[in-house]
Amino acid sequence: MNWLRPLAAGAYRVPFWAQHRAPSCPLRAFAAHPENQVAEGVVKVQQPKAQLGTDEGKKNFILKTPKGTRDYSPKQTAIREKVFNTIISCFKRHGAEVIDTPVFELKETLMGKYGEDSKLIYDLKDQGGELLSLRYDLTVPFARYLAMNKITNIKRYHIAKVYRRDNPAMTRGRYREFYQCDFDIAGQFDPMIPDAECLKIVHEILSGLQIGDFLIKVNDRRILDGMFAVCGVPDSKFRTICSTVDKLDKATWEDVKNEMVGEKGLLPEAADRIGEYVQLHGGLGLIEQLLQDPKLSQNKLAREGLGDMKLLFEYLTLFGIADKISFDLSLARGLDYYTGVIYEAILLQPQNAHKEEPVGVGSVAGGGRYDGLVGMFDPKGRKVPCVGVSIGIERIFSIMEQKVEASEEKIRTTETQVLVAAAQKKLLEERLKLISELWDSGIKAEMLYKKNPKLLNQLQYCEDNGIPLVAIVGEQELKDEVVKLRVVATREEVDVRRENLIEEIKRRTCHP
Amino acid sequence: MNWLRPLAAGAYRVPFWAQHRAPSCPLRAFAAHPENQVAEGVVKVQQPKAQLGTDEGKKNFILKTPKGTRDYSPKQTAIREKVFNTIISCFKRHGAEVIDTPVFELKETLMGKYGEDSKLIYDLKDQGGELLSLRYDLTVPFARYLAMNKITNIKRYHIAKVYRRDNPAMTRGRYREFYQCDFDIAGQFDPMIPDAECLKIVHEILSGLQIGDFLIKVNDRRILDGMFAVCGVPDSKFRTICSTVDKLDKATWEDVKNEMVGEKGLLPEAADRIGEYVQLHGGLGLIEQLLQDPKLSQNKLAREGLGDMKLLFEYLTLFGIADKISFDLSLARGLDYYTGVIYEAILLQPQNAHKEEPVGVGSVAGGGRYDGLVGMFDPKGRKVPCVGVSIGIERIFSIMEQKVEASEEKIRTTETQVLVAAAQKKLLEERLKLISELWDSGIKAEMLYKKNPKLLNQLQYCEDNGIPLVAIVGEQELKDEVVKLRVVATREEVDVRRENLIEEIKRRTCHP
Repeated sequence: MNWLRPLAAGAYRVPFWAQHRAPSCPLRAFAAHPENQVAEGVVKVQQPKAQLGTDEGKKNFILKTPKGTRDYSPKQTAIREKVFNTIISCFKRHGAEVIDTPVFELKETLMGKYGEDSKLIYDLKDQGGELLSLRYDLTVPFARYLAMNKITNIKRYHIAKVYRRDNPAMTRGRYREFYQCDFDIAGQFDPMIPDAECLKIVHEILSGLQIGDFLIKVNDRRILDGMFAVCGVPDSKFRTICSTVDKLDKATWEDVKNEMVGEKGLLPEAADRIGEYVQLHGGLGLIEQLLQDPKLSQNKLAREGLGDMKLLFEYLTLFGIADKISFDLSLARGLDYYTGVIYEAILLQPQNAHKEEPVGVGSVAGGGRYDGLVGMFDPKGRKVPCVGVSIGIERIFSIMEQKVEASEEKIRTTETQVLVAAAQKKLLEERLKLISELWDSGIKAEMLYKKNPKLLNQLQYCEDNGIPLVAIVGEQELKDEVVKLRVVATREEVDVRRENLIEEIKRRTCHP
Repeated sequence: MNWLRPLAAGAYRVPFWAQHRAPSCPLRAFAAHPENQVAEGVVKVQQPKAQLGTDEGKKNFILKTPKGTRDYSPKQTAIREKVFNTIISCFKRHGAEVIDTPVFELKETLMGKYGEDSKLIYDLKDQGGELLSLRYDLTVPFARYLAMNKITNIKRYHIAKVYRRDNPAMTRGRYREFYQCDFDIAGQFDPMIPDAECLKIVHEILSGLQIGDFLIKVNDRRILDGMFAVCGVPDSKFRTICSTVDKLDKATWEDVKNEMVGEKGLLPEAADRIGEYVQLHGGLGLIEQLLQDPKLSQNKLAREGLGDMKLLFEYLTLFGIADKISFDLSLARGLDYYTGVIYEAILLQPQNAHKEEPVGVGSVAGGGRYDGLVGMFDPKGRKVPCVGVSIGIERIFSIMEQKVEASEEKIRTTETQVLVAAAQKKLLEERLKLISELWDSGIKAEMLYKKNPKLLNQLQYCEDNGIPLVAIVGEQELKDEVVKLRVVATREEVDVRRENLIEEIKRRTCHP
């Protein structure tokens, strides 16, 4: 008589590492992660293969979830709930509304938005009618929503699953279905005020989750483009060189330079000039230095970007978070649609880190400004400036799960306050009457679905499930018009008059 | 400066009527509903067509969500949130855990579970790898989860979207993507205790939502099968005749009889015998009467079903809800997988009902016992008895939306407690410092993203968005080290010392 046998204990250790927001190159991210191999191994354990014998003929059937997806057990959803609550509280604290969009969009809506990542989009089968695809992120559906409803001002969050058909040969545990938690501000405003708020939100969430020290890297697409221009990159190669720069967090400069020169045909001198810039990171000092840089300061885009970056740092200082922000010229971000400031948060020293995991690999949030995306959907091309951030919670979940494992903290998967139990046989009717009263008073109550459960089994059920109280009905108690209230932790028992029981349970469980 | 321009007012009136749980016949449900035509008309308004001019060539592009789907605006998500909270509170009150499953399953997992409704399943395109389908309900994934993880005991809820490709010619506003809120109890228990709890849950939720009077019809597949047997229906036709009986809530007996005799080849005398039984509905009295019925009482299945129905009514009486329950021999439910008790809740007099809507058409919840489904997935066919209920919240949403419209109640779409405003120009830095303090103290605060917003615009923003308080910084206030706290509703203003501000805001907004 125990509800809680959802998965074998080992299954709780499944690390799900997929931090998917805006990968510039789907091919790079996973090869370097030793833990992905671990993850896949565990997924196999969690998805035992089995043969299903049907009545009509013995078909072979594998009992599993689709490749790259997983179920969430009650314990996993309980941990997930805590992470979501922290994130949602923060979004609400900043006055965000909520919208929701369908899980699939017209295929055309997604086309031309993701560059080479488009090949990762899941298409639906043509069963007659429209051609549909599963959403790849929440940003493009948001832009489509704004254009469709002619909204020019909104601050919203959206938490939902997105879908990416990662190249099967490369996935190695990368999830194909995963959550994104997006917060975006759309509207024409004075520079950098909403941008600074997005960074404040990342700071609040990562602090609130207590998953270790972090750093938020910022850069600006205009600074990157200005830098490419003054280094001698042809305009037509800005985006592809940008993609290569984005690999610097995983690859060495030598490898990156080789790609620029060898694969992408850049002159070695141009690459070397880029190499000097992308080593730079710092704060206001670096911004001032670059504003004086003889080459960069001649470029209009770079000047605009640096001016806004300076303003951003002033606002971040007022918010008291500038010490966690690093202006980093190597940050490029993958997606094509960014037009201004971009950012990415990394964990510096993840708690319970695997030994083989280097410091600072963990990207847990990212985003930026995309002023052109809504205009791509508007019939007249009207632009709605937007800036937003996406929290990459799959990685955060896995860290939280590991923390729970390491601390041996017991996670409750229900909120039940009291078990209605019987001291003797033949008391089912009394239990049903009592539990009904409790439910009707808003008390979270359970009972065992047995006519005559043993008292010991009922008490054991409370121990197993962390239920703090037991309301015991017995023959003597019925005569005395009382219920015996037992505190599971202390084994203290007290007779409570039936008419006072609800009040007494509420008093003893008033904490959330 | 107004965030709240999500949709034209008319868009909130979109009624979304799709109550989809377990339709026995997808072809029948919508023809009779006049409101479905209204719904489709409004969807068209909500989805204005527009041409998108792209940079590369002028492609024609329709700016819309896929057929049968819709976005949820902030106002709609706010109403949805209230409905979800009522439902989730109830599920938690009954000690349910939460699980989550992927939005798609292996195609094979869904095959052979839904009878003729299988044609409504959305398949994904074969892009190499596994053949996948979007989930059609939450019950089959739940059964797959139990079998895969060898779980024999669990009480869980799952709220998620499901997908049904309704025949386009028949849809008329029926949504193809919609939420289900499922609560299920799996495990081998004493008879009818969990079944009774499921009905208690339906009763609590429908009472809690305050959407008008309702009735819960119950029947049992064993009673139906026994009835078919004693009426002379061949075993092979039980399920198809059951489907026809299921149409009785929408069609006349004459039509139903014609289908039985004409299409399904039943003898007219057999149909007439069924016709006598299916008129019957009542409570304990009817059960007693049928237990004495000379024909039915000879049938083992019917006897078992009637015995359990009697027990169920005893438990429902102890729960104090028997007056809302009707044992109704015409209730058949569509899905093949039910094996015991089945039920369906209808609204008797929906609030703000369309005049043309007859009394009692609104099915808002349904479910039943399915003891064989998990065994279909288990390699050795091991059975896990299950009973569950699904709340059909699309219809409930639409009723709640209409209630809001009718009451002219203003629905807030944010929870912002205070706007940080400036009385004069050049106070952006002071506003940023103050709002940062408020956020860090957990206060829900907004500011306008302007360097120098006008005070009137800031106050108007509060009026428009229902923000109760304004914290005004001004030159004099800065000198005096105070903040002017304004109550929007009363226009009362009071100077609060800066160090007391947070406490004062919390005091004034302590209600949720």
